[in-house]
Amino acid sequence: MTDLAKGAAAVGQSGGPTAVINQSLVGVVEALRLGLHASGHVTRVLGMRHGVRGLIRGDFVDFTDMHQDRLDLLARTPSAALGSTRDKPDAASCDRALEACKAAGVRYFFYIGGNDSADTCRLVRERAVEMNYDLRCFHVPKTIDNDLPENDHCPGFGSAARYVAMACMADFMDNVSLPGIKINVVMGRHAGFLTAASALARRHDLAEGESTDGPQLVYVPEIPFDMDRFVADVESWYARKGRCHIAVSEGIADAKGTPIGATLIRGAQVDAHGNVQLSGSGALGDALADFLKEKLTPAGGKAPRVRADTFGYVQRCWPDPSPVDAAEARRAGHFAAMLATRGEHDGSVALVRQASGSSVWLGNAGQPYLSTFRRVPLAAVAGKTRHMPAAFLHGHNNVTRAFIEYALPLVGPLPGFERL
Amino acid sequence: MTDLAKGAAAVGQSGGPTAVINQSLVGVVEALRLGLHASGHVTRVLGMRHGVRGLIRGDFVDFTDMHQDRLDLLARTPSAALGSTRDKPDAASCDRALEACKAAGVRYFFYIGGNDSADTCRLVRERAVEMNYDLRCFHVPKTIDNDLPENDHCPGFGSAARYVAMACMADFMDNVSLPGIKINVVMGRHAGFLTAASALARRHDLAEGESTDGPQLVYVPEIPFDMDRFVADVESWYARKGRCHIAVSEGIADAKGTPIGATLIRGAQVDAHGNVQLSGSGALGDALADFLKEKLTPAGGKAPRVRADTFGYVQRCWPDPSPVDAAEARRAGHFAAMLATRGEHDGSVALVRQASGSSVWLGNAGQPYLSTFRRVPLAAVAGKTRHMPAAFLHGHNNVTRAFIEYALPLVGPLPGFERL
Repeated sequence: MTDLAKGAAAVGQSGGPTAVINQSLVGVVEALRLGLHASGHVTRVLGMRHGVRGLIRGDFVDFTDMHQDRLDLLARTPSAALGSTRDKPDAASCDRALEACKAAGVRYFFYIGGNDSADTCRLVRERAVEMNYDLRCFHVPKTIDNDLPENDHCPGFGSAARYVAMACMADFMDNVSLPGIKINVVMGRHAGFLTAASALARRHDLAEGESTDGPQLVYVPEIPFDMDRFVADVESWYARKGRCHIAVSEGIADAKGTPIGATLIRGAQVDAHGNVQLSGSGALGDALADFLKEKLTPAGGKAPRVRADTFGYVQRCWPDPSPVDAAEARRAGHFAAMLATRGEHDGSVALVRQASGSSVWLGNAGQPYLSTFRRVPLAAVAGKTRHMPAAFLHGHNNVTRAFIEYALPLVGPLPGFERL
Repeated sequence: MTDLAKGAAAVGQSGGPTAVINQSLVGVVEALRLGLHASGHVTRVLGMRHGVRGLIRGDFVDFTDMHQDRLDLLARTPSAALGSTRDKPDAASCDRALEACKAAGVRYFFYIGGNDSADTCRLVRERAVEMNYDLRCFHVPKTIDNDLPENDHCPGFGSAARYVAMACMADFMDNVSLPGIKINVVMGRHAGFLTAASALARRHDLAEGESTDGPQLVYVPEIPFDMDRFVADVESWYARKGRCHIAVSEGIADAKGTPIGATLIRGAQVDAHGNVQLSGSGALGDALADFLKEKLTPAGGKAPRVRADTFGYVQRCWPDPSPVDAAEARRAGHFAAMLATRGEHDGSVALVRQASGSSVWLGNAGQPYLSTFRRVPLAAVAGKTRHMPAAFLHGHNNVTRAFIEYALPLVGPLPGFERL
C-alpha cells in the first residue's frame, strides 16, 4: 500500500528561465490536482515566488483552483512565471525553508531547475530527514545547457537549440549575401551542447569537419581554446571562400580552464553559486572580432569585414519553442507529481530516449523519436555537470554526425531554404 | 498604345538583407515571366549576383525557366539570395553598368533595396538617358529601418519588427523572473521605427509613457541622447520596481548628432556610402551597462544587476517572417514588373495603406488592414531618409499609442502570455 503524507504541495522555479519551464510548472500543478489533490492527500497546490525565497517569506501563488485555461496559457508563456532565483541555500536557509514548510503545512516540495536546483532539493530533503519532518522532495530537470547527468537531454535545451539553429541558418545566408567573417557567441558555461546545435543550421552539406554550410567552425568549452589556432582555422576558410561563419560558446576557456570571456566583462558580477557573469555582454565576441581583424589584416592592406553577434537572453526564452521540448517539459512535471503519488519520498526526474528518431533530411527517415522518464536519486544530479561526450566532437572545432542525429529530433521541424 | 522595349530584364538586390527581400525578387521574376516574357518583350529574366557588380562582371543567374517550386522556396528563404552589395556607383561604374546592359541586351533594370539602392537606380537611369540607351529602371523598396519617404512602411520592416517585439516580449518575462536592469540594443541608424517596435511587446499595459510592461524606456535616434537623463530615467523605474527594461537604438546620437555607438567600436569600418559600422558589435550596449552600473551603485553598496544584449543580424533575417510583410514584399515585386508592363520608363514602388487595421488587443477590432502600391519618381526616394514623425514619439523616451496602432498590423499575430 502506498505511503502518502497529507498536506500542501509547494512548487518553485530556480536558475535561468527557459521557454518551457512553465510547461513543467503547469505539468506538476495539473497532475497534482488530478491525483493527490483529488485523493485528498494534497490540500493546496502552492507556487513559491522566486523559489525558496518565496517559501521562506510565505509569498505564494495558489494554484489549487486556478482555471485550467489560465494554466494552459501560462504553460505557453516563456520564462519562469513564479519568478526565479539564484540564491544558494546553506544550512541556515534550509532551516528557514523547513520552518516555512511546517508553518504552511507543506509536505510535498517540487523544484524545477538545473543541477544547482537539484542540490537545493537534496539539501532541503536531508534537513527534513534530520528534523524528522515528512517532506517529500522532487527535482524536475530544466536547463538550456543540457548538462544534467542521467538525462539523455534536458527540457529547455530543445527550444534553445531550435533558436540557435534557426538564427544560424538565417545568419549564414546573411553571411553569404554580404561576405566576411562572422562570429556568433552562444550561451553555455561548461557544456557545449547549445553551441553545437548551431551545426543543425547546415542544410545542404553535412560532411563532418568540412561542411561548406555555416557555421564552418564550432568551438565548445570542452576543448581548450587557443587563440593562435583559432586565427589559423579562420584564415584557412577565409582564404578559400572569402567568408567564414563561426559559432563560439560563451564558456570557451584556455588550457588552464580560465574562461576567455570572464576576464573581458568590465565589472563582471558573481552569483551565489560562484558563477562569474558570462552573459549579458558582447565583450567576448567583440574581443575575438578585434583579434581577427588585427591578425588577418595584410601588411598595408585592408582589414577583413569581421562582425560578432552575441545571442542574448532571447535564446533561452524565445516564445516559439520546439514542440517536442514543450511536450517533454510538461510530461516531466507530470512524472514528478506521479513519483509523489506512488509514494516516493524524493528523486529527480530523468529523461530517457526510447527511440532515437530519424529524419528525411538525414536520409534515414522512418523511425519515430520517443522519450520517457525514470526516477534517479537527487544526489546523482545535484551539483553535477555533464559534458559533450567525445563521440559528439570532431577535432577541436566541429561536431560529428552522431551529434546532429542526437539533437535534430529535439528541435522540431526547421524551415527549408533555397540557394542560387 | 503601350510603349515597350524588347530585351533582357536584370534584377538585383542591394544593401542589408531582410527576411523577405527574396519575396520581392521572386515577385519581380514571376510577374515578368507571366507578363513581358509571355508577350515576347522580355527575352530573358536575369539575376545580377551582388548587385551592379554582378551586372558589370556578367555574373548572372538565369531565372527565365527556373521551376516555380524552386522560386517559391527561394521566396521563403531569408537574406539576399543573389548576394548583396554595399558598393556605391559613381559616374565610372555607371558607365560600366550601362555597357554591361548593352552587352547583355538588358532593357529592364530592377533594383531591390533602400534609399541608396534607389539612388543607384536613379544614377543608372540618368546615365542611360544621357547615352540615349532605352533602359527602364525600377526600384523596389526594402529596408528593416522603415526609413524610405513616400512609403507608409517598407517591406522588410514588419518582419524585423516582429522579431524585435517577440524578443522583447520574452526578454521582459525573463527580466521579471530574474529582476535587474536590462538593455536591448536594436538596429536602426537614423530612424527609430524598429527600436520603437519593441513597444509592441507590451501586452497588458498600453498606457502612454508609463507602461509597467517592458520595455518601459525606448530611445530612438530622432531624439538627442543624454547620458545623465538616461541614468535618471532608469533610476526612477529601478527605485520603484527593482527592475527596468530598456530598448535603445544603435543609432542614438548626442545633441551634436554624433552617434554614441560609433565612437565605441574598436577598428570600426566605414562602407562606400560613408556609413560607420554600428552593428556586429556589443560595444554600445556594454558601454551603457557599464555606465549604469557605475552611476547606480550606492556608496559602499552593491551594484545593481545590469545586462545588455545587442540584437544582431538575426533581427533582419529571422526565418519566421511576418505573413503581412512577406505578402507585401512579394506584391511590391509584382507591382514593379507591372510598371514596366504598362510602359513606364522608371519609378520607385511605394507602399500605401488603404485601411489602417485594428485589433482585438487594442480594443478596436473590426476594420481589416489593407495596403496597395503606387509609382513615385526615383528622385523622391533616392538617398532620402524618413524619420519617426512627432505623432509617434512620446516625450524623450517612449512611443505613442498612434505608433502602436500603426505598427501592430504589420507584424502579424503575436503570442499571448499569462502573468501571475
